[in-house]
Amino acid sequence: MRIFHAVEQVRAGLAALPRPLGFVPTMGALHAGHLQLARTARQQCASVAASVFVNPTQFGPGEDFERYPRDVQGDAEKLSGAGVDALFTPDAAVMYPPGFSTIVDVGALGAVYEGAVRPTHFRGVATVVSKLLHIVQPDVLFVGQKDAQQSAVLKKLVRDLDFPVRVEVVPTVRESDGLAMSSRNAYLSREQRAGASSLHGSLECMLEELRNGADASRAAQHARAQLDAAGVWDYLDVVDAQTFEPLQHLRAPAFVIGAARFGSTRLIDNILVSA
Amino acid sequence: MRIFHAVEQVRAGLAALPRPLGFVPTMGALHAGHLQLARTARQQCASVAASVFVNPTQFGPGEDFERYPRDVQGDAEKLSGAGVDALFTPDAAVMYPPGFSTIVDVGALGAVYEGAVRPTHFRGVATVVSKLLHIVQPDVLFVGQKDAQQSAVLKKLVRDLDFPVRVEVVPTVRESDGLAMSSRNAYLSREQRAGASSLHGSLECMLEELRNGADASRAAQHARAQLDAAGVWDYLDVVDAQTFEPLQHLRAPAFVIGAARFGSTRLIDNILVSA
Repeated sequence: MRIFHAVEQVRAGLAALPRPLGFVPTMGALHAGHLQLARTARQQCASVAASVFVNPTQFGPGEDFERYPRDVQGDAEKLSGAGVDALFTPDAAVMYPPGFSTIVDVGALGAVYEGAVRPTHFRGVATVVSKLLHIVQPDVLFVGQKDAQQSAVLKKLVRDLDFPVRVEVVPTVRESDGLAMSSRNAYLSREQRAGASSLHGSLECMLEELRNGADASRAAQHARAQLDAAGVWDYLDVVDAQTFEPLQHLRAPAFVIGAARFGSTRLIDNILVSA
Repeated sequence: MRIFHAVEQVRAGLAALPRPLGFVPTMGALHAGHLQLARTARQQCASVAASVFVNPTQFGPGEDFERYPRDVQGDAEKLSGAGVDALFTPDAAVMYPPGFSTIVDVGALGAVYEGAVRPTHFRGVATVVSKLLHIVQPDVLFVGQKDAQQSAVLKKLVRDLDFPVRVEVVPTVRESDGLAMSSRNAYLSREQRAGASSLHGSLECMLEELRNGADASRAAQHARAQLDAAGVWDYLDVVDAQTFEPLQHLRAPAFVIGAARFGSTRLIDNILVSA
C-alpha cells in the first residue's frame, strides 16, 4: 500500500491504478466497521483508496476534536491488511491552507437530528468530502450505515451536485451484544460500555412497536424506557430514509434513529427499514 | 457539433472525445466575447464543450431572469462555427429537480461589490459551475475577464475544493468605442448605448490617476466625473485581483472595477493591472 500526504502526489499515484476505483474516507481510529468498508470496496472495485483525516471543520467548539483517537501507523497496517492500494493522509494545512473559505451545504437534511445538535457538522462533512472526491476521483464512494444521516447527506450531495460517483452504503458492524462499532466507543468506561448496548436494544424495541402499529411518539415512549440507566437520551425517532423528515407511522424506506449520552460520550445508532 | 440536454447523455458523449477537454459555460445570448472564449479553448484543447444555461439561482428577485435574452438556435450555430464539439443545454428541471437544496459558497469574496448588490448571485454561480464541472469533467475551464469577480470566485472555488481543472481567464472583447461586450448591452437604448462607453473611459482615467500616485478615493473622485450623464455609478474602486479587498494605492495584481446603471440596465467592467 502506498501512502500519500500531498494532493498532487496522490492524484499522480491514483492515475496509474486500474478502474473502477473505490474510495473509503475515514477519520482513522479504525475498527471492524471501517475494515468492512475497505473489504467491500475491495470486492467491488479493481482498486481501493482510503483516507485518514480527522477533519477539524466537522467538529464544533467544545467537541472532541483534540482528543479524537489518532493512530495513523496502526490504521495504515489495518488498511493494508484489508487490501487497500493507496492511503491519503494529509495534514490540516494541506486541506485548509490560509485563506480557505468555501463551504458546501446540503440544506435542511443537514440541520436536523445530528445537525441540530452539531450545527456546522454536516457542512464540514459535505465540504471535506467534496474536496476528497475531487482529489481521489473515485468511481464508488463507500460509507457506513452506522452514520445514517451522514450517508444520506453524502447521497444528497452527490445527487444535487452531480458528482460522477456512486455512493455505496455498507451495513453496520456490531459487537456481540449489539453495540454498533464506533471509534468513540473507546471513550466508554466499563460500566458505560455495558450499558451502551441498550441503545441498539431500544431501537429494536421501537421498531417492533412501530411494526405492531404504534405511532412514533407512543413507540418512542415505550422504547425510551429500554435505555440502561448509564445513558441519557438525545433523541429517538423514525424518519424518512432520504430526507430524515420525522414519520408519524412506519413507512419504508425509513430509519429508526437514536442518540444517547453515556457519561460525556455521545453515541448514535440506527436500523434501516427497507422498502 | 452534438447537442445534449440530459446529464447521462452528455457524459457519454464527452467520454469519447480526445483530451484535454476545454469547457466554456455560458448563459447564451452569445456575443464576440463568448466566441473568443470558445476559440481560445479550441486553440488550447483537443476537444471543446460549451454549455448554454440561463441559471435561475444566480438571479435575485426583481432581476432580469425572465427577460434575459435567449436564442439557443442562434447560439448553437455560433458555437459550432467557433469549433465547439459538444453543447450541453439542459432545462432548469434537469439542473434543479424537485428537492434540490445544496449550495456552494466561497465566502467573503462572493459578498462584496457584485455580491453586495446581488446577495445570492455568486452562491448561485459557484453552485451551478460545481454541477457543470461534475457533469462535463473538463481539463480547462474558460471564463471571461469581463466578469472579473466571477472569475476570481471560480478560481477560488476550484482552489478551495480541489477541483481537478485549470481555470483560464480570457481577456475582455470590446466594441470599437471601448464598451465591453455583454449580453445585457442589448437592453440599452441608442442614447444609453452612446453613453455606456464612458464606463470604460472612467476606469482608464482611474487607472491613470492611480499610476500617477493618487490614492483610491481621490482617483475615484476624478474618474467618476468621466461617466456620461446617461449613467449612474454603483461603485468604482481598485481591488486586490485575488481577494477583491479594496486597495488604498495601486498594488498589482489588481483590478480597477466599476459598475454603473444606464436606465434600468446595470453594466460592469474592469481593467486588470498585472504584476
